[in-house]
Formats: sequence, structure tokens, C-alpha cells
Amino acid sequence: MESDGRLTRGMLIQGALGEGKMLQGSLDSSGPRFTPLVVVELASDTKEEAIAWILSRIRDQQQNGGAELLVEQLGPGVGAQEKENPNMFLVGATRQRLLSGAEEVGLFKECNDGSMRGFTCANKHNFKDFEGDGDSFLNMAECQYIIKHELDTLRAKDETHVPGHTQVKLYPGKSIIRRLQSKGILIQIFPLHGQEELKRLSFSWYKKVKLSFQPLDNIRHYYGEGQALYFGFLEYFTFALVPMALIGVPYYLFDWEDYDKYVIFAVFNLVWCTVILELWKRFSASLAYRWGTLSRKKAFEEPRPGFHGTLGFNPVTGRKEPLYPNAKRQLRVYLVSLPFVLLCLYLSLYIMMIYFQMEGWVLSFHDEEPTFWTGILMFIPSIIYAVVIEIMNLIYRYAAEFLTEWENHRLESSYQNHLVLKVLVFNFFNCFASLFYIAFVMQDMVLLRQSLATLLITSQILNQFMEAFLPYWLQRRRNKKMIRKVQKRRTVEEKELPLAEQVRLEADMSTYLGTFDDYLELFLLFGYVSLFSCTYPLAAVLVVLNNVTEVYSDAFKMCRVFKRPFSDPAANIGVWQLAFEAMSVIAIVTNCALIGMSPQVKAYFTESETQLILWTVAIEHMLLAFKFILTFLIPDVPKHIQIKLARLEFESLEALKKKKMLEASDLSKTME
Amino acid sequence: MESDGRLTRGMLIQGALGEGKMLQGSLDSSGPRFTPLVVVELASDTKEEAIAWILSRIRDQQQNGGAELLVEQLGPGVGAQEKENPNMFLVGATRQRLLSGAEEVGLFKECNDGSMRGFTCANKHNFKDFEGDGDSFLNMAECQYIIKHELDTLRAKDETHVPGHTQVKLYPGKSIIRRLQSKGILIQIFPLHGQEELKRLSFSWYKKVKLSFQPLDNIRHYYGEGQALYFGFLEYFTFALVPMALIGVPYYLFDWEDYDKYVIFAVFNLVWCTVILELWKRFSASLAYRWGTLSRKKAFEEPRPGFHGTLGFNPVTGRKEPLYPNAKRQLRVYLVSLPFVLLCLYLSLYIMMIYFQMEGWVLSFHDEEPTFWTGILMFIPSIIYAVVIEIMNLIYRYAAEFLTEWENHRLESSYQNHLVLKVLVFNFFNCFASLFYIAFVMQDMVLLRQSLATLLITSQILNQFMEAFLPYWLQRRRNKKMIRKVQKRRTVEEKELPLAEQVRLEADMSTYLGTFDDYLELFLLFGYVSLFSCTYPLAAVLVVLNNVTEVYSDAFKMCRVFKRPFSDPAANIGVWQLAFEAMSVIAIVTNCALIGMSPQVKAYFTESETQLILWTVAIEHMLLAFKFILTFLIPDVPKHIQIKLARLEFESLEALKKKKMLEASDLSKTME
Repeated sequence: MESDGRLTRGMLIQGALGEGKMLQGSLDSSGPRFTPLVVVELASDTKEEAIAWILSRIRDQQQNGGAELLVEQLGPGVGAQEKENPNMFLVGATRQRLLSGAEEVGLFKECNDGSMRGFTCANKHNFKDFEGDGDSFLNMAECQYIIKHELDTLRAKDETHVPGHTQVKLYPGKSIIRRLQSKGILIQIFPLHGQEELKRLSFSWYKKVKLSFQPLDNIRHYYGEGQALYFGFLEYFTFALVPMALIGVPYYLFDWEDYDKYVIFAVFNLVWCTVILELWKRFSASLAYRWGTLSRKKAFEEPRPGFHGTLGFNPVTGRKEPLYPNAKRQLRVYLVSLPFVLLCLYLSLYIMMIYFQMEGWVLSFHDEEPTFWTGILMFIPSIIYAVVIEIMNLIYRYAAEFLTEWENHRLESSYQNHLVLKVLVFNFFNCFASLFYIAFVMQDMVLLRQSLATLLITSQILNQFMEAFLPYWLQRRRNKKMIRKVQKRRTVEEKELPLAEQVRLEADMSTYLGTFDDYLELFLLFGYVSLFSCTYPLAAVLVVLNNVTEVYSDAFKMCRVFKRPFSDPAANIGVWQLAFEAMSVIAIVTNCALIGMSPQVKAYFTESETQLILWTVAIEHMLLAFKFILTFLIPDVPKHIQIKLARLEFESLEALKKKKMLEASDLSKTME
Repeated sequence: MESDGRLTRGMLIQGALGEGKMLQGSLDSSGPRFTPLVVVELASDTKEEAIAWILSRIRDQQQNGGAELLVEQLGPGVGAQEKENPNMFLVGATRQRLLSGAEEVGLFKECNDGSMRGFTCANKHNFKDFEGDGDSFLNMAECQYIIKHELDTLRAKDETHVPGHTQVKLYPGKSIIRRLQSKGILIQIFPLHGQEELKRLSFSWYKKVKLSFQPLDNIRHYYGEGQALYFGFLEYFTFALVPMALIGVPYYLFDWEDYDKYVIFAVFNLVWCTVILELWKRFSASLAYRWGTLSRKKAFEEPRPGFHGTLGFNPVTGRKEPLYPNAKRQLRVYLVSLPFVLLCLYLSLYIMMIYFQMEGWVLSFHDEEPTFWTGILMFIPSIIYAVVIEIMNLIYRYAAEFLTEWENHRLESSYQNHLVLKVLVFNFFNCFASLFYIAFVMQDMVLLRQSLATLLITSQILNQFMEAFLPYWLQRRRNKKMIRKVQKRRTVEEKELPLAEQVRLEADMSTYLGTFDDYLELFLLFGYVSLFSCTYPLAAVLVVLNNVTEVYSDAFKMCRVFKRPFSDPAANIGVWQLAFEAMSVIAIVTNCALIGMSPQVKAYFTESETQLILWTVAIEHMLLAFKFILTFLIPDVPKHIQIKLARLEFESLEALKKKKMLEASDLSKTME
């Protein structure tokens, strides 16, 4: 059987390639006969029938249910070794196919009159950048997104299983790519980097030393809207913290312990947090409008690859699809996941108490015989605790992913929401519990300030290391190996790698897992700044500094460390907006409590502590009410964009009306 | 000129009637040659040219910019007198015109497969109740709504002013009806009651003595969705209060002063309030889905009749329209309206303080020589205060309407929101300020209970009187006059009035000003129940009793006292949902505070008042957080309706895709 398989292999693939040409070693310099956009890597033990079938389905015409894309096998690399996977395929498409795909995915592009409209092939000449045949109309990221969408919506017809793999069952309407992915036949599918564009982008992004805004439009052009919104938010957040940082500096320099001033700082802080979050919504709406994602309709969401259940009919689409009872999922969420999260929170509390015991031991040790070494020892528990927190966050993250996977959510968005919620709550608790304990149980403001500083600085250093330098170092090692391998075979005159090597190099790069961790980091930093801002005004300065380096290290890792991610047409930062707003609500409560507890404020209410607390609570409630009213009063979308959106809607309504009137008059004419 | 005018009058109208028949005395028995649906009353001093022009515009074909409706003048009544206005017109439409109008307004109707879809003439036979020519497909309220819409969108062509009234300026695209209305030429436009249907409805609604749900579908059928949602909410709210009332009764009967029990009652209350408001959203979504308003698209909103400004071009529609700078409006809102409201609130506080002084005088008077009369005197200040509150609310209402009108809002919805906000805040303050003062400043729970009871009962009695009995009595007097007048002329065998009399009778009826006052009343009652529920558990019982009578009196006044209102295709109770939710948030704060202040709870914290307050605040915050999480967790639309909506959207997406593919293949065929 084995030898048989090997015999038919070449023939089958040759057949599938259509024009009968095998792309082998020759490809490494000349490349395929189309611009390769996306790489599909199948497992090396995939049967030849399966490969031939997959390729033919990808190539087949749309009216036959195919994806009508171009696909070729990648030839072996220069240093072709036994362990190299031969089943790498390059996917591309004709210009015409990409344009019709752009219409299918509902891409919004700028028109000649400056408005954003859904692209249609019929009206293509109304669009601003459409020149000639429209060769440069779609950028590479858009093309790759379209190809991804076309591959994802490639559905089984009447196949009961993947040819050659009887265990990989199919049924009419099942997305082929998703099934291959969940069964491990499809190892990965990723878009290729555009070397030229990447070089230009990285130069304007992080290689310039001069201070300037990030090239958001270029980032969006290369990575898509989701990434660009993250970097936009990072930049916005950094600038928004600058006033807080500036006000914080004199507090630190002159060692102002005057709580009158702290009160002013805290109140400014709270109002500022609310205002910047509201203004971000407006700013992000402007960006999303400019990028055409604000009014873009979401396509119907398919079940995620890992979703399983008994086969049935989807009540919405009427398509055959696995169904999983919602009640069962709810049971899993409330009876397993929720208790697990609570247990983890308890564990985190327990570890926190150990930390405080350690802190106590060290302190007593230092008090007995204070030397230089015991002075240094004082910092050890905090640092250990900060490291332990990071490790716990990491472990919990895996557990949360496992649990959320097990909860078996039908939609990727629902999976993401449950994962974010789980991770968010634990991280929040883990990072801030000790600070809450110090602030409100021990009521030790000096220790609070010290702990806050230690935690903030340690976690910043750890993060930068884990996030950028470590992966970069690993990637660099891999790069060098590959370059050495290529150089072994031939003298490299051009600095660029041949395509086959470049593809294999990118295939080996780490996969970027989305903006989750980046947002989470910002969220925790926001917590450090806002929750206890009135005790440690320097926090904002540290966070601003961190964010500036973060921009560079994130940009660097996106350009050099990771595979290019598929663009994700986001219109806002989603659940994170909510998370940041929740944090700013909690910040109002903690800051009011801290101010109420301060000795200076207490001095005003010597006669009655009750009066003090009542005043604090009253002011807190007023601030909360004020925050909600402010949120309500500031419109989420700027006026000029509201008008543009209203105009679009009005025009479509009018067009519909006109069309109906025309149809009616046509009808009456034919009846006459 | 006068005699000239009178001479041409008959001729002009005769011309406008098209077939040259004058409808006069003969109409009262035979009626016009179509079902009259809507009455348009023009001022008696309207020039003949103007009338002829208006009628011709209403009758003109749609392609000429007319409304293509049927319209006839109402003949004089039986007791025709000098002062009777002759310019009353009956408007109707052909069946075909009504169906095409239904498509234009985007009416949703039930299909054969049970789903709700937008009606289109092309697919008319797919709709469930469409039989034969579709004579009974649209109900009377829908027909009247369509006619109203067609009249409202009747636009000026190139007229510069209304013929015969040079001061009534027009410009292309201006809604004629709105201009006539704002200039006082159009006195009123109202739909006719359907006597048969009204009789049936009123019988099943309030004339039956047996306990049953209200016939919501019939109410919606007759009055439209906005009214039906109000009555649905009234009924839902009443049933939702029953458990609270049942639990409250033993507290009153056994005089339980045990605060442990009060705490349980209050906590139950708070959770209950949140849950019922969330469930109402779901229930209202079900109703709105069944009535076809949930997914119905809102038409583009025209400026309200009273809106004025310099003529310019609307940035959305491109139509000529008055424009008024938003900044100017904001200035009026923040520099005039806001200070005015604050001043009124201060005034209300001032009057409250006078009340407490009066209360003090009476008490001291009673304490000096307690007699039976001084005992009765004790109640006088509360009753006077309750009456004064109602009067102040009434006066303020007029002021708020004037101010909001003066703010010159472009849209009716924006006008309504500003008005509701103004009235809501003042009414809330006016009704509850004294209770807050007694509860939290005087901390006198006995007085609080007494005041709550007095205020609640007095305002209930006043409301029922002002709302139903007074208008009914006035209407009854008018009715009798009319019947006497008719009887004078001829012996009335049939009990029904002739059409001309019926129309004039309805024209004289009071105009129903919308659900505003009804919701406001419910809102205040909800406040009485929820804000201080733990001191007066009987409040729920009183409110339930009030609501039961309210159903009857509101039903009665809708059927007998008021002109029929135009139906209003509402999908929810709008801003009132928000208002009720805000009230339930405030209720959490007040109830926690009340419980914290109770002597029984204080007894637990004898050693430290601080501890008590901290606990109270902590529990309050937890309850608030719990409330928000609950609001977040309970989906606003029931699952099965979500699925139906998703299916509709999916189908339209698929249809669009299929259409595009067909067009593409057509194109390629023609190119071959």
C-alpha cells in the first residue's frame, strides 16, 4: 500500500495542477505563475487522494461549488531535508476573482465623493482608487482576507468523508477547511508577509528615532483593522496619560504629602478616566469609519472549528450542522467553570497571605539586626510575589483556555467573550488583591505605595522580556540557521531569501495569537494607574514610559517575530471598552475610600467618624452618578460621521422606494 | 372681495371634487362613496383657492407628486348652525393605494410560514391574512396610519406659498400638511373611530366583570402598538407587583416591626424590581415581534412642525429645510433650561420646608390642647401639600413644554426626550423630596410611613379624578347636547348618530396627548413602592389596587373620552425603560440606607457605628454590582425571537448573494 501510494502521488498531484507542470526546485527562483498570498500547510502524512481532492475543490469554479482560486505546491527548499514537509501550498487568485470576492465579503471602500460604501463590481468605477483594471485597488491584507474567507466558506457537496481519510467525516454544507483543521490534516493556514511593504512599514513605524504618531493607516493597510485599532488605542492611551503623568511629577519631586492636593489629583483623575474612555469611543468610530468597518455588515458567523455536537439543522440557516444544547453548556459554565474560577481566586488569596507572612518574617529579621543585606532582603518577597503572580496568570490562562474550549461554544465570538471574562477576573484579582488588602485591611499607605511600585515595575520588566525579547531571540536563532543553510548551497548575492525558503521560514515563525494579551497588559496597567492613583502619582509616569517602549517592542514583534496574522475587520475594541469602563468605575470607589481614610481628611472630621464616612459615600455616589450622566451625554459617534451614516441609510431607502415605484409603473405599463 | 370669494367657492370645490357632485345634506344618511378614515379640519376662514389647491394635491396621482387619496367635504350637520365649521374633509383611499402605501411605510405582517416580514405588493400572496383582493388585510388603524403618512409626506413642488394665503410660504420639498398645521390653517387631523369595532373592543376590555387579561391584540388592532404596549406594561407591572403585595400584607396585618423581616422584604424587593424590569424587556420584545414593529426600519424623521430656522440644505437628505445651529440649541438648554429646572427644584424644596413648618405648628397646636378637631387638623398639612404638589407638577409641565418648544428641536423624538427628562426630574423631586427629608434628615420612620401613605392615597385619588372622571363628565355633557340637537330635527330610530354628526362629535372630543402622563403616573407609583418599600410594605397593595382601577379608567377614557389617536408603531416603551431602571438603582441606595438606619440593625453594631455604615455601604455596592451583572446576563430578546430575526437577516443576505451571482452570470452570458 505504501509504495502504491507513493507511485500514484506524483500523478495525482500532476493531474490536479491542471496544466501538468510540477513545480519543483525551479520554483525557488522563479516562483509560481501568480502572486502567492496565502500558505496552506497540510500534514505530511496526508493521503494523495485527499490532496488532489482539496486542490481540485479550491480550483473548481464557483458555480460548481468551488472556491475558484489559484493554488500551487511549494517546491522543496534549497537545503531540502527528509523532515521538511512537502505539503505546503501557495494560494492566490485572479484579479477578477478578488474583486468579486471583495463584493462577497462586503468590503467597504472610499468612493469618489469621499463616502464609504460597500464595494460592488457593477459600480467599481465610482470608487476612488479604482484605476484601469483595478490592479492596485485591493491591498495585500484585503486580498488575503478575501482568500481566507473563500477558503473558509468552501463547503462539502455530497462527500461523506475526505477521500483517503475515511475517519474525517463530511456532510453537505460543512466547511471543508474547518473540518480539516479540527482533524489535524490542515496544520496551518497563514498569509505571507509582503517583504517590500513590511520594510517600508517597519521603517516608518519603529526605526525612525524622531517623535511622531504611528503610521496607523499603514498599519491597517498591512495588518488590518483589528491590529491598527490596538495600536491606535495604545497610542491614544499613552497620550491620554500624559496630563496625569505631568501632574504626578511634582507630587513625587516635592514629596507633597498634603492630602488636599491628593484630593484634587484624584478627582481630576476620575473625571479624566471617564472622559478619555468616552472620547476614545468617538476616536475609534472615526478610525473605523475611515477604514470602512463601522457600517460594514457582519457576515453570518459559522461554528468554530472545535465545536462538536450531534448533527442537526441550524434553525437560522437550515444547514446541516452540529448542535449542542444550550442548557448543557450553561450547566458546564455555572457548575464547573464558575466554581473553578472561584477556587483559583481562593488559591490566589491564599498565596497572597503567604506573601504577607513572608513580608512579616523579613521585616522582623531586618528589625533584629538591620544590615545592608537585610535591607535588600526586604525587597525579595515583593519581587518573588510579582514573579509568582505572572506564573499563576500564565498557568491559569492555559486552564481557562482548556475550560472554555470544553464549554463547547458554537461561535468564536462567544468563546472569546467567555475566555476574556475568565482571564480578566482572575488577572484583576491576582494583580490587585494584595494592593486592596494593604490599602483597606492593613491601611498602610507607605507599604501600599512601595508594593504598587514594585509590582508595576517588576511586571513591566517581565512583560517586555516575555513578550518581545525572548521570542525575538528564538526567532533570530531560527533565522540564522535558515540563512546558513541557504548559504551552504549557493552564494547569496541578493539579501532576500528565495521564495521557498522565505515561505518555510515564515511557516516556522510563531503564530500571533491576537490582541488579547496586549489588551490585557494595557488593562492591568490602567488598573495600576487608576485604582490607587492618589497614593502613587508617579504610576502614570511609569506607565507612559512603559507604553512608549511597548509601541516599539510590539511593532517590532509584529514585523519580525510573528507570522503575519489575517486581518480582522474590527469596528471597535469590543469587550475591552467595557472592561476599561468597569475598571474606571471601580477606581472611583477605591479612590474615594482612600481619600476618606487619609489622616488629613480625617482631621477635618475629628468629632465624628460617621460624618466622615457618610460624606465619603455621598461624594462617591455623586461621582458615580456624574460618570454615568457623562457617559450618556457624550455621543459615541462624532456628529459628522453620524450625518454621513444617516445619508447612506437615507440614500438606500430612497433608492429602494424609487426602484419599487419603477417596478410598479413597469407593471402597469405591461398590463396596459 | 368677500362676495367674490363666496361666489367662486362652490365652483372651485365642485371642480376639485372631480365628478362634480356636491355632498351636502344627503351625506348624513348615505355617506361618501368610500370608507372615510381620517378627518381633516381646516380653519373656517381658509380661502377657497387654498382649499381647492389642497384637495387637488391630495387627489393628484403619485407620479405628479400627489398623495392619490380620496377626499370629500363633510356636509353640514342636522342642526347646522352659523358657527359650525364647513371646512371638514373626509379622507380615504382605494384598496390598491392602501396596499402600496403599506409597502411604502414598511409595514410588517405575518407570512404563511409564521415569520414577520415587510409587506410588498409583489409577494402579497405569501402573507397570511391576504385573501382575494386583500380587502380585510389591513386593519382600520393601519389604513389610518398609512393615510397620515401619505398626507405628511405630501410635499410642495414649485409653489412659493399656499394659494390665497401669501403669508404661508412654501418651498420645494416642504411638507404641506406640516406648514398648514404650523400656520393654523389646518386645525386638526384625526382618525375616525370605528363604532362597531370600538363597541366590541370596549366590551371585551372593560365592560366584562370577570377577571381576565386585557385583549392586547385587539387594543393593538384598534389603537396601534404604542397604546397596546402601554396597556401591556400596565398589566405586566400590576401582576409583577402582586407577589410584593402578598408579602406586604402580613407585615401590615401583624404589625411586624421586626427588622430582620424587613431586611428580607427589602432584599427580595430589590432583586424583584431588577428581574421584572429585565423580563419586561423580553416580554415587550415578544409583543413587538408579534406585532411586527421589532425589526421594522424607522423611516427618516422629518423636522417637527414647530421647528424653525434659516432655510438651507439638510446634509443628510440634501432637501431644502430650515436649519438651526446645534450650538445655539445647546446654549439654550444649558444656559436657560437647566438653570430654570434647578430654580424650580429649589422652589419645590422651599415649599417643602414650609410644609414641614406647618406640620410643626399643627403638632404644637395639637400638643397644647389635643381635641378631636386638632387630631383631624394633623392630616391637613399633608393633604394640602399633596394637592400643592399636583398643582406644581401641572404648572411646571406647561413651563417645561414651553421651554422645550423654545429650545427648537429638529426632531419630534429629541423634543420628547428633552421634555420627558425635564418633567421626570421635577416630578421625582417634587413627589419624593419630602420623603427623603423625613427619612434621612429627620430619621422619623413613623412620620415617613404616614407621609408615604398620605401622599400615595391623595395622589391616586386626584389622578383618577383629573384623568378620567372630569374629562368624562365634560364629554358626556357635550354628547348629550349633540344628541338633543339631532333629536330636535328628526326622530332617531337607530341608536347610532348619522355620519356628519358623528364626525363633528368626534372633532369636539378632547385630543389624547400620548402615553406620557400615563407612564409618568406609573413611574411615580413605582417610586412609592420601591424607594421606601421596607418602611411601608402596604404600598404595593395600594398600587396594585390603583392599577386595577387604572386599567378600567384608562380603557374607558381611551374608548369614550378621547378622539382616536393615530397609531404609533413603537417597538418598546423607549425612554421609560431607562427611567424605571434608574428608579430601581436609586431604590437600592435608599433601601440599604433605611435598613442601615433601623434600630434593630443598629443593635447588632453597638460597639461601632462605623462598622455598621461600612457594612451597609459594602452590601449596597454588592447589590448594585449584582444588579448590573443580572442586567447583563439576561438577554433582552428571547432566544426563539433572536433565532427568527437571525433567520430573516440570513435569508436577506443569501438572497442578495444569489441575486449578485445571477447578475454576474447574466452579464457573462450577454458578453458571450
